[in-house]
Amino acid sequence: MPAPVKSVLPVVLLGCGGVGRYLLRHIVSCRPLHANQGVAIRVVGVADSSSLLVADDVHSSGLDDALLTQLCAAKAAGSPLSALLGQGHCQLFQNPEARSKVIDAATMLGRTTGLVLVDCSATYDTVSLLKDAVDHGCCIVLANKKPLTGAYEDFQKLVSNFRRIRFESTVGAGLPVIASATRIIASGDPVSCIVGSLSGTLGYVMSELEDGKKFSEVVKKAKSLGYTEPDPRDDLGGMDVARKALILARLLGQQISMDNINVESLYPSELGPDAVSTEDFLESGLVQLDKSMEERVKAASSRGNVLRYVCEIGSTGCQVGLKEVPKDSALGRLRGSDNVVEIYSRCYESSPLVIQGAGAGNDTTAAGVLADIIDLQDLFRKTA
Amino acid sequence: MPAPVKSVLPVVLLGCGGVGRYLLRHIVSCRPLHANQGVAIRVVGVADSSSLLVADDVHSSGLDDALLTQLCAAKAAGSPLSALLGQGHCQLFQNPEARSKVIDAATMLGRTTGLVLVDCSATYDTVSLLKDAVDHGCCIVLANKKPLTGAYEDFQKLVSNFRRIRFESTVGAGLPVIASATRIIASGDPVSCIVGSLSGTLGYVMSELEDGKKFSEVVKKAKSLGYTEPDPRDDLGGMDVARKALILARLLGQQISMDNINVESLYPSELGPDAVSTEDFLESGLVQLDKSMEERVKAASSRGNVLRYVCEIGSTGCQVGLKEVPKDSALGRLRGSDNVVEIYSRCYESSPLVIQGAGAGNDTTAAGVLADIIDLQDLFRKTA
Repeated sequence: MPAPVKSVLPVVLLGCGGVGRYLLRHIVSCRPLHANQGVAIRVVGVADSSSLLVADDVHSSGLDDALLTQLCAAKAAGSPLSALLGQGHCQLFQNPEARSKVIDAATMLGRTTGLVLVDCSATYDTVSLLKDAVDHGCCIVLANKKPLTGAYEDFQKLVSNFRRIRFESTVGAGLPVIASATRIIASGDPVSCIVGSLSGTLGYVMSELEDGKKFSEVVKKAKSLGYTEPDPRDDLGGMDVARKALILARLLGQQISMDNINVESLYPSELGPDAVSTEDFLESGLVQLDKSMEERVKAASSRGNVLRYVCEIGSTGCQVGLKEVPKDSALGRLRGSDNVVEIYSRCYESSPLVIQGAGAGNDTTAAGVLADIIDLQDLFRKTA
Repeated sequence: MPAPVKSVLPVVLLGCGGVGRYLLRHIVSCRPLHANQGVAIRVVGVADSSSLLVADDVHSSGLDDALLTQLCAAKAAGSPLSALLGQGHCQLFQNPEARSKVIDAATMLGRTTGLVLVDCSATYDTVSLLKDAVDHGCCIVLANKKPLTGAYEDFQKLVSNFRRIRFESTVGAGLPVIASATRIIASGDPVSCIVGSLSGTLGYVMSELEDGKKFSEVVKKAKSLGYTEPDPRDDLGGMDVARKALILARLLGQQISMDNINVESLYPSELGPDAVSTEDFLESGLVQLDKSMEERVKAASSRGNVLRYVCEIGSTGCQVGLKEVPKDSALGRLRGSDNVVEIYSRCYESSPLVIQGAGAGNDTTAAGVLADIIDLQDLFRKTA
């Protein structure tokens, strides 16, 4: 017999593309598991970039599981949320009314029974809504990195009630990086440095270079394996890693912004998107980078080191780029597309705490988001 | 300006030896940090094996920091708790009255403002007290493995309100193994297998053997480095690893006991403590084991593998002993005294989630206990 439900978590999901759809599926399939643990997730609304589907009565009910399942199928097929009208006890609102309906729900539920705004979109546009929700006492769970990597004031506002925000999946997908760093900090063990390989793509590329392969060939192979963005320069430029680095730096208390991070791009501006098309970059641009990369790899090797594309957050600031690391360190031993993070602190001084594993993928990212939601349950417990 | 205190966590500490003393020091030194986070830990009582020092009025005050600091110094110098009488607003009770005073505090505070019983002892004797405390609505934080590795019914009782118990430091000290596995399970990602090297001593010994050194010499070296217990057979027998394995197995839902775990001892019963003294074991016993160990290491090496002393928790049960692992796996690459844990699940199927780092030491273990205590704060928040 399942335990009596002690905690109900009403959720509004912003963004129902890849990660968001997986999250809804996980929520539905985990119902029996969560019931056993005395917790229930009530999805009261789901929004995409243009509209919001919301339960008729957010106080007492959510969108039912059949509707959520249909919603996943519709979004996977490229249909808009409006295609679901008439499928259940719900209403559809277009922007900008959609936004005010989310605020209505936040006002009604935020301080009383709690409301979790889950951002699985990939846009800056959610920031003002999230900040308003914080004012209404809501919780925030983010897979979207952008709200935390804009203006420092936005970050500060979003984390102002630190027990009410989770953002594990912004760094290393479901890997317990933020949770572990937060635990270490809370125990009074000051984190002195975090070094990480936080791009599966660049991790793969750099480890393949050790075997003497050409940079251009390895990047094309990575693209054919689906590891890169459609334009690999979106990976090679390092901005995605820099966003993760900024989140970690801010978590450690650094009041910095993207401008303060040195980001080394693996291609020069002459081969950038403004100057060269994706096709030309792949056909003739990449090969121009082979020689200098080969020289760097060889130079590192002569010192017993290998090259990794890492972020490094220390007391002196935050850097993102190529770094020589010992062959037999956790970073140096990395192969394939796994992420790895090394955390140094008083307790992990000479030998770091290392966390390694798959750091991308809709399934894994959504699992991290769901664990974050569940982690909020004690804030809204019905009874002690 | 620190945030207003939103959560007060009254704590009774059982066991103020190494880990317990470090915990009290951490609690005192973290006061400003925790005040900034709106949380305060109130140590209302500290017990050793014979007596309990308890605040005059557990409702409104705790033992003050000066007294806690004196207490650490007294225990470090080998003095009993009674040496502290007259040092502050506190009372001293000897067993068995001490026990009933803890229950009094649990009865008064458990359901209302919360009370956390923190067990840093190394005895089975605390189990009945902890079970009673659960009945009174108290939270439990354990560094002590024994309450979780006795009768299955005891484990079941202690974890019956799973949000009110933490036991990170029972496995791998402060390494986030339990927290990470719990996150993965909560996200509906079923853990299929955990493989770990959870003894720093045996990790060191097995990795040193790869260089062709003799088993007897490596064990003696480990002893001289302070890695082993005074009698190294306490490590070589594998029982400490087996207790950690049992905790992980039970966390994964296996209803098993120590009797159900195959534990491979690295010494035969003819060389056990009943037959041979510690001195004789070190002088002449150990060397008898060199040849067979050398053969096993060589056989593994011929297959590209290395030997590790691991626990393996899978669907087929739980084993503890020597295992051949690929040289280039996380376990195979392990050097020195770090612990490493590989967690396999749907999301971490071909390539596991790996957590690695120092898995022993009073400082690290106490830091893990403190993080566990802080993690309970949302259960006793004053206001939403």
